[in-house]
Amino acid sequence: MRQSQRGQVDAFIVMDVMEAARAAEASGRSIIHMEVGQPSSAAPKGAREALAKSIDEPLGYTVALGLPALRQGIADLYKRWYGVTVDPARVVVTPGSSGAFILAFSALFDAGDKVALGEPGYPSYRQILRAMSVEPVGIPTKAENRFQPQPDEIPEGVQGLILASPGNPSGTVLSRDELAALTKRASELGIAVVSDEIYHGLDYGTRCHSALEVTDDVFVINSFSKYFSMTGWRLGWMIVPESHIRTVERIAQNMFICPPHASQVAALAALDCHEEAQANLAVYAENRRLMLEELPKAGFTKIAPPEGAFYIYADVSDLTDDSLAFAAEILEKAGVAVTPGLDFDPVRGARSLRFSYARSTPEIAEGLARLTRFMAGR
Amino acid sequence: MRQSQRGQVDAFIVMDVMEAARAAEASGRSIIHMEVGQPSSAAPKGAREALAKSIDEPLGYTVALGLPALRQGIADLYKRWYGVTVDPARVVVTPGSSGAFILAFSALFDAGDKVALGEPGYPSYRQILRAMSVEPVGIPTKAENRFQPQPDEIPEGVQGLILASPGNPSGTVLSRDELAALTKRASELGIAVVSDEIYHGLDYGTRCHSALEVTDDVFVINSFSKYFSMTGWRLGWMIVPESHIRTVERIAQNMFICPPHASQVAALAALDCHEEAQANLAVYAENRRLMLEELPKAGFTKIAPPEGAFYIYADVSDLTDDSLAFAAEILEKAGVAVTPGLDFDPVRGARSLRFSYARSTPEIAEGLARLTRFMAGR
Repeated sequence: MRQSQRGQVDAFIVMDVMEAARAAEASGRSIIHMEVGQPSSAAPKGAREALAKSIDEPLGYTVALGLPALRQGIADLYKRWYGVTVDPARVVVTPGSSGAFILAFSALFDAGDKVALGEPGYPSYRQILRAMSVEPVGIPTKAENRFQPQPDEIPEGVQGLILASPGNPSGTVLSRDELAALTKRASELGIAVVSDEIYHGLDYGTRCHSALEVTDDVFVINSFSKYFSMTGWRLGWMIVPESHIRTVERIAQNMFICPPHASQVAALAALDCHEEAQANLAVYAENRRLMLEELPKAGFTKIAPPEGAFYIYADVSDLTDDSLAFAAEILEKAGVAVTPGLDFDPVRGARSLRFSYARSTPEIAEGLARLTRFMAGR
Repeated sequence: MRQSQRGQVDAFIVMDVMEAARAAEASGRSIIHMEVGQPSSAAPKGAREALAKSIDEPLGYTVALGLPALRQGIADLYKRWYGVTVDPARVVVTPGSSGAFILAFSALFDAGDKVALGEPGYPSYRQILRAMSVEPVGIPTKAENRFQPQPDEIPEGVQGLILASPGNPSGTVLSRDELAALTKRASELGIAVVSDEIYHGLDYGTRCHSALEVTDDVFVINSFSKYFSMTGWRLGWMIVPESHIRTVERIAQNMFICPPHASQVAALAALDCHEEAQANLAVYAENRRLMLEELPKAGFTKIAPPEGAFYIYADVSDLTDDSLAFAAEILEKAGVAVTPGLDFDPVRGARSLRFSYARSTPEIAEGLARLTRFMAGR
């Protein structure tokens, strides 16, 4: 049967690493997971209890944009976190941030349009755009700019720009001034801005700023996956300009009908589980401290300042020019799963690795010990 | 901010009807719901219990194609229901059948391609295609063909064909011979076939046949929403040709990461809840009997043979040429919510209505009494 051109997207390499790690574990080996971009903790207790209480209800379709109480709760979060007032009518609950990207790209870009994004960056931006016949245009960001794109680096002839703060894999955060300068330049160029804020709440001293603090003319995307520890529940959200609410609603009605109802019930309760989320954050903070102490000693010295999220992006150009093979070697010899930079940067990623520190502290400590032994014996 | 052309899709009219019905109820009126395409029952007990047992587990990302046990269970269903052997590797678990359509269309069609589909038909086929820059080409089906497209009606120059059996809104079922003739013709024309089988299991004497009974060269889409009564859980599946597994996996990794984990746990258990699903079916069968008895008496005489699903599609051209206004009048005066045919057929739908009989039998009986009174007083 026929295959489309646009369907020929790249695999998500980290998923292949996860599969290799799973196979190693199935054969009896112990593997420390520094590849996965997700917490090992369950959803907050309050979220699980709320769903358990509602589980015998029909839980049929909700309205396409999500339960009104959940949309209100998300709007309230913007007041609490950033001091920004958001009309709940602008809140779109989505099937994961993945669903939010599909909706945003559908509402903003036509086939043949071009969208700029920083490299290294989340690989699925590129692949989702391609699957929708939109051309991703990479901006090779610089280490001295903390791997974030600069206003004067936005290429000509694009219709959109994706920002990510904290960045994945870099973990670096855009300041309020940087967000203002980037969105101002985008506005001058007449291009749409999508701001990926999925790691907000996971910061270590440098507060994350929402693009909504500097403009309303932006699609802001976030999710319950990371800070609220609910990856598998596939529930995200998006704040859209008032001008785009009805457009996005129509697309969402047709493309998704609604986000998963059970996940919405759990997420609504999760919004009140601040303490548990903060306890998870304290674990990541300790993990980060360990990583920053031990990784350089092991020989991973060139790393981006990890201001947020739970990743460390290391330049390993002094060690390899084949990060895929190097990651495989680390899995094989050290028993630690890490992600080759090629997932995030199709060019320079051959000389970089991403380490995730989202697991428990004992696991991270053991992983660091293994990495240190491996590097010493290399 | 800019808006795309392709994002300007039509609203899903039934959702606006649902909203009008909700508003009427909020103002204190009693409304009978014959508009909604979903069971009023909860997910099967076994499904709810399985999730309740797993709810304290992390429920993180699953692999992109879904839990292996669930894929195996779905493959087994094809043996049980149709006597067809399906390799579980060909089973793709998706975020609702909605997600399956997005994946299928991405894997099969490029921007500018054309896809044929019968009218009347499920409106979101058309809107999802448009949002992906693919052009839907309607085939105006005939009442004497039970509103199903014929092999010689497939238009020239299309790259794909969507089949639906039982059809929505028609409820009519394609025979094995009809499926064979349609897929054979599509194969001669070199076009891809997507077979929507989401209402399978809901039939009344005429067993539904899967396109997989006559060919492997087809994308078959189904879901836990209807027969298993799990609409809001947003879990569907797709059987793809072996040649397309890896393509679909890559797209799914990037576009969805994975289907909702909690829903997958519930759905796996639902596969064993045959008795409860059959009990729901018995309710629809009784509702259908009442509908067929009472609708003609009320004055809705021209209906498609409702062989499956839980819909009756009525030609009301002797009563109106504005189904939108007529549906609004029925909601206002009779207190019964019904769906204007315009959702399903942009042209002839102005003279048709869809009645759903998915609610409880007492509700359906009351709805029919109200419709009879309304029509008598008209």
